Amino acid sequence: MKFGIIGAGNGGHAFAAYLGLKGHEVYWYDIDSDVVHALNEQGGVYVNGKLNGFAPIKHATDHIQEVIEQANIIMVVAPANAHRVIAKNCSPHLKEKQMIVLNPGATGGALEFYQELKNNHCTADVTIAETQSLLFACRLESPGSVSIYGIKENLPMAAFPNERTESAYRILAPIFTEWVKGENVLEVSLGNLNAMLHPAPSLCSLTKIDQKQEFLHYLDGITASVANFIEKMDEERINIGKAYGLDLPSSKQLLREFYGVEGETIDELTRNNQAYQTIAGAQTVSNRYFAEDIPMGLIPMSQLAKAAGVQTPTIDSIIHIVSSILDDDFSSSSRTLESMGLENKSVEHILKLIEQGESSQVMNG
Amino acid sequence: MKFGIIGAGNGGHAFAAYLGLKGHEVYWYDIDSDVVHALNEQGGVYVNGKLNGFAPIKHATDHIQEVIEQANIIMVVAPANAHRVIAKNCSPHLKEKQMIVLNPGATGGALEFYQELKNNHCTADVTIAETQSLLFACRLESPGSVSIYGIKENLPMAAFPNERTESAYRILAPIFTEWVKGENVLEVSLGNLNAMLHPAPSLCSLTKIDQKQEFLHYLDGITASVANFIEKMDEERINIGKAYGLDLPSSKQLLREFYGVEGETIDELTRNNQAYQTIAGAQTVSNRYFAEDIPMGLIPMSQLAKAAGVQTPTIDSIIHIVSSILDDDFSSSSRTLESMGLENKSVEHILKLIEQGESSQVMNG
Repeated sequence: MKFGIIGAGNGGHAFAAYLGLKGHEVYWYDIDSDVVHALNEQGGVYVNGKLNGFAPIKHATDHIQEVIEQANIIMVVAPANAHRVIAKNCSPHLKEKQMIVLNPGATGGALEFYQELKNNHCTADVTIAETQSLLFACRLESPGSVSIYGIKENLPMAAFPNERTESAYRILAPIFTEWVKGENVLEVSLGNLNAMLHPAPSLCSLTKIDQKQEFLHYLDGITASVANFIEKMDEERINIGKAYGLDLPSSKQLLREFYGVEGETIDELTRNNQAYQTIAGAQTVSNRYFAEDIPMGLIPMSQLAKAAGVQTPTIDSIIHIVSSILDDDFSSSSRTLESMGLENKSVEHILKLIEQGESSQVMNG
Repeated sequence: MKFGIIGAGNGGHAFAAYLGLKGHEVYWYDIDSDVVHALNEQGGVYVNGKLNGFAPIKHATDHIQEVIEQANIIMVVAPANAHRVIAKNCSPHLKEKQMIVLNPGATGGALEFYQELKNNHCTADVTIAETQSLLFACRLESPGSVSIYGIKENLPMAAFPNERTESAYRILAPIFTEWVKGENVLEVSLGNLNAMLHPAPSLCSLTKIDQKQEFLHYLDGITASVANFIEKMDEERINIGKAYGLDLPSSKQLLREFYGVEGETIDELTRNNQAYQTIAGAQTVSNRYFAEDIPMGLIPMSQLAKAAGVQTPTIDSIIHIVSSILDDDFSSSSRTLESMGLENKSVEHILKLIEQGESSQVMNG
């Protein structure tokens, strides 16, 4: 299979290694021409940890169309904040039957990507899938070298529109054997574990961040009180799912499923998780634990809640406080009902749209 | 003058020293019979720092009525959470023309104290005053020994009903020369600096508290980001005041007035404040920086805002998050419009009540 990879950060490197070692053709885009040059010089990626070896790539480039033109499946592996501009930049080049996979979609990724293609007058009939989390726990050592210290199990994916999830899964599952089929993109989007586990520990470690005290995000950041805070957010997240007919697993269940870890409480599960042992805490308030997980996670969750008449006071409170601290209410950047194409729609209408795509609105709306 | 002091903690000791050294008769109540015994054995209080010497007391007791029966002026110097039970226990013993002073009232102290006397069928015509903050920065060294390392200047007081503030001030000002007359109890209550400066740094140091890492509340807790958080709360507090016709000073102005300290930002002002240099951060999540300043500070502020149709999203957010963390929404303990006697009243009606007391309701309401 010909894969395009958009992004040469931690996750992009891990996917290049994973796919290259499995013999797939990898076409790779990154915005940084120095990184692109280094990747082409080396001709592939060195990987160690859960995978080991040298994975060849076909070509790296800082011209996105060179990747889009070659690939059957386009793996977007970038901070969710970049999804919108990536959609815009892809839109003139996409062809019929291509598949785009957001790794992960954060909350509302596939829906927003679709809207942005539409806003940019893309008419190619593409399928947009998203995964619930990044497949890998990994760290970029240098351009062309990556350590993979964890590969998740039972990672849900779904496509928009949902009637294509089955066919997308049939193509992807033989390659990504750790993936499972989610109920729909709403279930996958509302399973955004990062949004539960990233902002609260950062807020409750804010004086450490400001004082440049190094700390471990999970081991120092998720104390018993912070776990309690996260549990309250998690209950609200699960309630949003209920309003859309979804029986979402708790964050505790997700930790058990993804990592095979045992424990009773959020703090126990994160402490016991080998993949979390060395992950550093945020070093600045502009870190992605706020800058990505609030506007691309908690805010679209809160928006989905509002559309369904669900109260999310704890989620709304942390959004508000972090916004206050940063002097940024994310209003120009965050995912909203509008950017996800869901504004002024009932739950029933949203569910039909998720299932059938926008054509159903024309036919039935 | 005969003073009763209710409470033999840090502040109670400082007042006993302050009043005893000025030659006033001090009758002193504390709930702890061991402390009471030690105080009577010693016959007074040793004080050092801003005041120095031995201040005699007349009598200490763990029977509150022995103090109430003797005193002209009753100084309540206890956590605000205890004001309600103190009012209840005082109510059978109060006599005409006594004055009660809450040091400080936190937010809504005088109003709640009055309601609680009424709820307990107290008919004595007493005046209830409150100060905006504790007069002293002080530390109890042992029963009968206190260090006073700061005495505030320009500390506002007011009485309920407000038409008695002038006469109360005429009695108190010659003794408490640092006090100034506030506009009314709403102004004094909304000037609750502790509610601004205590909960936010504690929330943003929560992982330190859970991990038993010692830190200084002001110097480590009020970093630049936390100062920004506090500024947003402070803007909301000032907006509440506006709705009640009050031009409240900012927390920065209060720091300058109380401590004569200089600086541009909240973090700079707190860092520069000599009285704050050694004050330790909370050691448990059940500390008074949450347990007192949320239910007796931020919640009644939020309630006053609601009565006036003012939005306080930052204040409400921290209330909600701390409640989530503690699994306690403070609903059984916090000050509310009802406990302050203000439920279902317009701003105009509240202002008339504050000014004239409840008789005005009978006559005009």
